[in-house]
Amino acid sequence: MTYCVAMRLADGLVFVADSRTNAGVDNISTFRKLFTFGNGRDHALVLLSAGNLATTQSIVELLRRRINEAEENLMTLPSMYDEAAYIGKLMREIIDRDTHNQQSQGVDLSCNLLLGGQIRGEAPRLFQIYPQGNFIEASIETPYFQIGEFKYGKPILDRIVQYDTPLETALKCGLISMDSTIKSNLTVDLPLDILIYETNSFSVSRTRQISADDEEFLQLRKGWGEGIKKLFNELPQCSL
Amino acid sequence: MTYCVAMRLADGLVFVADSRTNAGVDNISTFRKLFTFGNGRDHALVLLSAGNLATTQSIVELLRRRINEAEENLMTLPSMYDEAAYIGKLMREIIDRDTHNQQSQGVDLSCNLLLGGQIRGEAPRLFQIYPQGNFIEASIETPYFQIGEFKYGKPILDRIVQYDTPLETALKCGLISMDSTIKSNLTVDLPLDILIYETNSFSVSRTRQISADDEEFLQLRKGWGEGIKKLFNELPQCSL
Repeated sequence: MTYCVAMRLADGLVFVADSRTNAGVDNISTFRKLFTFGNGRDHALVLLSAGNLATTQSIVELLRRRINEAEENLMTLPSMYDEAAYIGKLMREIIDRDTHNQQSQGVDLSCNLLLGGQIRGEAPRLFQIYPQGNFIEASIETPYFQIGEFKYGKPILDRIVQYDTPLETALKCGLISMDSTIKSNLTVDLPLDILIYETNSFSVSRTRQISADDEEFLQLRKGWGEGIKKLFNELPQCSL
Repeated sequence: MTYCVAMRLADGLVFVADSRTNAGVDNISTFRKLFTFGNGRDHALVLLSAGNLATTQSIVELLRRRINEAEENLMTLPSMYDEAAYIGKLMREIIDRDTHNQQSQGVDLSCNLLLGGQIRGEAPRLFQIYPQGNFIEASIETPYFQIGEFKYGKPILDRIVQYDTPLETALKCGLISMDSTIKSNLTVDLPLDILIYETNSFSVSRTRQISADDEEFLQLRKGWGEGIKKLFNELPQCSL
């Protein structure tokens, strides 16, 4: 499984992705699920993926290849809406290609994607692309999307993240959301990929990987875990 | 949907159930999902239900009716294991009865149950009964079971509840777990039914309903919500 969260806020975009993949519980691997595409001038895109790994890897490979080979590609499309439609169409093509044989019967080739970024002339935008290739856009009222094992980590997002939350604060919330998910579901795990995109920077380089021995993340985990227990103990009981 | 949690702890059993049912998001009602059966002497049982309401209501009705009409019933079976098997068998019979017609095609008649209680001669025990009618028992290592919309409220249980947690503390944790679920999922809602069973009491009367204007629960909600935000704000950010 997978857990990814992306937020579209007043100051820009925030992305957090785990890297655990599994085909059954006895076949667990680490694969990156955060991908960046940018030319540093007018196109900056970040893609998060969940679902069938063969499908998502093919999508990323062909998106990259087309930037050099095709006239219409991620770096030439004029709007984030067109980028989402372009990726949704490619997703359908790949699933169609891999479905037309006997062996693929009963295998789920679908995937879910989050696409965030900015194209010069527009504000930053965030889309969730469904397995059908259609998509929805985040709004001021609903500034974040999740894919994969999203339920465990949703309560803290619902309590904290709003459109005007600062990017670094939103990142901290995304990491706590991820920590809760990791603690309750063994198909989500470190290392994590994180990225902050600042509006009008057209740079996708503010990113890093958080590994299992990352001192800052360990401190955050510890502080949160101990703080939750302390808070819990301080609250009064309900009578019964 | 539904969210129910039950715990089997050193001092007894704890139960928390919501009361929201829905057939689609436009058909929402309130139905009790916590049912008690006891004779005050040697049999004390609590049943929590999730799933098809027609199925679970039939199960409860027939369980009650058989106590008066049948020789083999909830108040005569010699062990909690036998009780779980008895209820699982009844569940299968009801689903079979309601499946044998044209109209039931494509309708999900299944349900999940939690059965906790004590029969004199045994310690208190807790079972989860699956839609197939088979069942598993809670252990010292895994002292709680959930049914329905369980993921939102699992992280706090994983952090707090252990076998030696006092009953009142476990109840508080169950209520916070419920609050997180209600906040993130509109198919789970108040009023809540709560019950504490103390080992060797053979009484299922320590129970009450928590409604939307319950002062204690509102205080717990408020304290938790504000405490979480304060804790979150105090924690350091991760550098990026």
